[in-house]
Amino acid sequence: MAAAARLFRGAAPPALACARALGSAPPGPPRRGARRAALAAAGALGGLGLALGLWRRQAALAAAREDEEEKELRQRFMAPPVSGLRELRRRRREVRSRMELLIMETQAEMCRALAALDPGASFSVDSWERKEGGGGISCVLQDGEVFEKAGVNVSVVSGLLSEEAARQMRSRGKSLKAKDGKLPFCAMGVSSVIHPKNPHVPTMHFNYRYFEIEEADGTIQWWFGGGTDLTPTYLNEEDAVHFHKTLKEACDKHDLKLYPKFKKWCDDYFYIKHRGERRGIGGIFFDDMDSPSKEEVFQFVKSCAKAVVPCYIPIVKKHCHDSFTPEEKLWQQLRRGRYVEFNLLYDRGTKFGLLTPGSRVESILMSLPLTARWEYMHNPPESSKEAEILEVLRNPKDWVH
Amino acid sequence: MAAAARLFRGAAPPALACARALGSAPPGPPRRGARRAALAAAGALGGLGLALGLWRRQAALAAAREDEEEKELRQRFMAPPVSGLRELRRRRREVRSRMELLIMETQAEMCRALAALDPGASFSVDSWERKEGGGGISCVLQDGEVFEKAGVNVSVVSGLLSEEAARQMRSRGKSLKAKDGKLPFCAMGVSSVIHPKNPHVPTMHFNYRYFEIEEADGTIQWWFGGGTDLTPTYLNEEDAVHFHKTLKEACDKHDLKLYPKFKKWCDDYFYIKHRGERRGIGGIFFDDMDSPSKEEVFQFVKSCAKAVVPCYIPIVKKHCHDSFTPEEKLWQQLRRGRYVEFNLLYDRGTKFGLLTPGSRVESILMSLPLTARWEYMHNPPESSKEAEILEVLRNPKDWVH
Repeated sequence: MAAAARLFRGAAPPALACARALGSAPPGPPRRGARRAALAAAGALGGLGLALGLWRRQAALAAAREDEEEKELRQRFMAPPVSGLRELRRRRREVRSRMELLIMETQAEMCRALAALDPGASFSVDSWERKEGGGGISCVLQDGEVFEKAGVNVSVVSGLLSEEAARQMRSRGKSLKAKDGKLPFCAMGVSSVIHPKNPHVPTMHFNYRYFEIEEADGTIQWWFGGGTDLTPTYLNEEDAVHFHKTLKEACDKHDLKLYPKFKKWCDDYFYIKHRGERRGIGGIFFDDMDSPSKEEVFQFVKSCAKAVVPCYIPIVKKHCHDSFTPEEKLWQQLRRGRYVEFNLLYDRGTKFGLLTPGSRVESILMSLPLTARWEYMHNPPESSKEAEILEVLRNPKDWVH
Repeated sequence: MAAAARLFRGAAPPALACARALGSAPPGPPRRGARRAALAAAGALGGLGLALGLWRRQAALAAAREDEEEKELRQRFMAPPVSGLRELRRRRREVRSRMELLIMETQAEMCRALAALDPGASFSVDSWERKEGGGGISCVLQDGEVFEKAGVNVSVVSGLLSEEAARQMRSRGKSLKAKDGKLPFCAMGVSSVIHPKNPHVPTMHFNYRYFEIEEADGTIQWWFGGGTDLTPTYLNEEDAVHFHKTLKEACDKHDLKLYPKFKKWCDDYFYIKHRGERRGIGGIFFDDMDSPSKEEVFQFVKSCAKAVVPCYIPIVKKHCHDSFTPEEKLWQQLRRGRYVEFNLLYDRGTKFGLLTPGSRVESILMSLPLTARWEYMHNPPESSKEAEILEVLRNPKDWVH
């Protein structure tokens, strides 16, 4: 976590990109450096009477409050938010600001939970900027005792999209009316893939995202997407039930129809067509969610994001010290190969990301495992543990009712 | 090689697909089993005089000649050709029959050269059929002393293509006129990827292919494609020059313009766009080659196919006993990861193959290495041997003039 603290002090936070990409928000109040310069200037003038004395006291109080807030936020997040803390606070009622805070919190919660299980390892924290607008924070733990590779990314990007690119961003392919062929957009999300070392600990992926696109007449199209899914090397029914049950509970708080619909969507989405297998045992997946209301969808997404740690971390704790054989490690590596196949051949997020100008390749491909294996004509024997998981990947099961 | 011999005797050769896919060739003469039955029937009739005796003697001579030919062909090939030996012999003047023999010979030459360098390992030889028409022979050596994974595939497939699929097959995207929306086609090729264990021995890939498509008015559109390219983990200039020089000599026999054109095409094709790197140090690549004449292009392709063993095998011999460090092995694994990225994200052959109904996934993905690695933010230090090869992958060099 040392890197995070250094970043708070050292690196300049990325530009206030997304919070200002749409609409006509005025520039925010002067930031830390500017405030200090103003205080210094006020000091140099000196002795200008009571008014100035009062102003100085107020400024000092504001500075102390801000230091306090910065300290608190440093404890909450892995790095300063892309849109800037003051800007997010100023626009605190807007869903996009609350979503940015939610993805930042989710990143920090996940990183802390993982770090607690792998005390020898540490996250590298990189804040990056996108020259076309916005930026992100990538947290990656590599080659730890428990985790082979664990990445938790936040990105908050904005700019102008072509009509075609905007259409591709929505899974329903809705067409959007642009002014001069370009659409101002803002996209933000938290995305994570955790590849553990032990073959009895499953790989987990989650991603929660929010989009806004402004049409020619000023209408703002918005939608949410996301999901959480599990990819075990070996089937453990108890874990599968715990994982799905935790997600179902998060969904059921909002609408009983959501879990069954998004569970099926997950099985359909993570399908490795040429293998006739799913990538894992599923979870939930949804896209293009824009009803019943922005507030209600946000609350649903918040419930899902809050379920990430409780649905996964207990499974890691339970199995991270399980013993395993070289054969089990080998089967894990072959399944990692399938993971790579899905991500590079089918995953819309990966493909869209790599094709987007100015995208950060290292953050997108952080989802790939540290190591993977491909054997020609590998077919596990019938009735083996390897055949058992394959059967479930070929014919998805219902884990909770 | 035992598997090949078993296949010659045991498995029924795939149907006479490609040689008969286009035009109206009559069914071939009765095959081995039918011939034996005819001889037995002739014997059962017995004593029908001189005419029958002569016929029997001729039949016995023909059978002996056929056995001799089969023996010879077994020595030449890894398995019986997809279109059947008799059919290929009957149509021996046609380019498509000569191309099928050439790809079979190239497969066998390569497999034998590789097996000679890795005597402990052996090729698994699988003859497979495609229910939509045609089939192939996949030869794979895995986890040997010298080679981590070496695959040499032949496929000869035929059937009907949609206009859209046919258009996609040609890199220039020429449109073709179909009868009832479908175009009879025949496609054949030899394709190989060799991943050695030692990081000082480069990976090599080659592929030579031939297509025929019959338009509504009976016109047959044909073209050749192919290439041979090298992917070293570390740069060895002497090897790079030897490899390119051997390919240049093969090209120069036909037209001095070919090597420079196809060398550039290779650098352009094997480009990993999101990394800004080529997959390797190139070689030659061409597609859609249909002039000056079918015979001349075939002769050129033959020269290229005959150059495969001499351009690569001396490099393997030279380095397969070089010592290497764990760090060098690690860099090789990271480069293997890039190989996977290219093949799954950009390679037209892989994507077209996986999307083609009835394609054999194991043969297509045989090109992937046995093992690969992805590290977040791996950047080799300046002036290192790792940085040296990256520089060449970012800015391709001319190796021969």
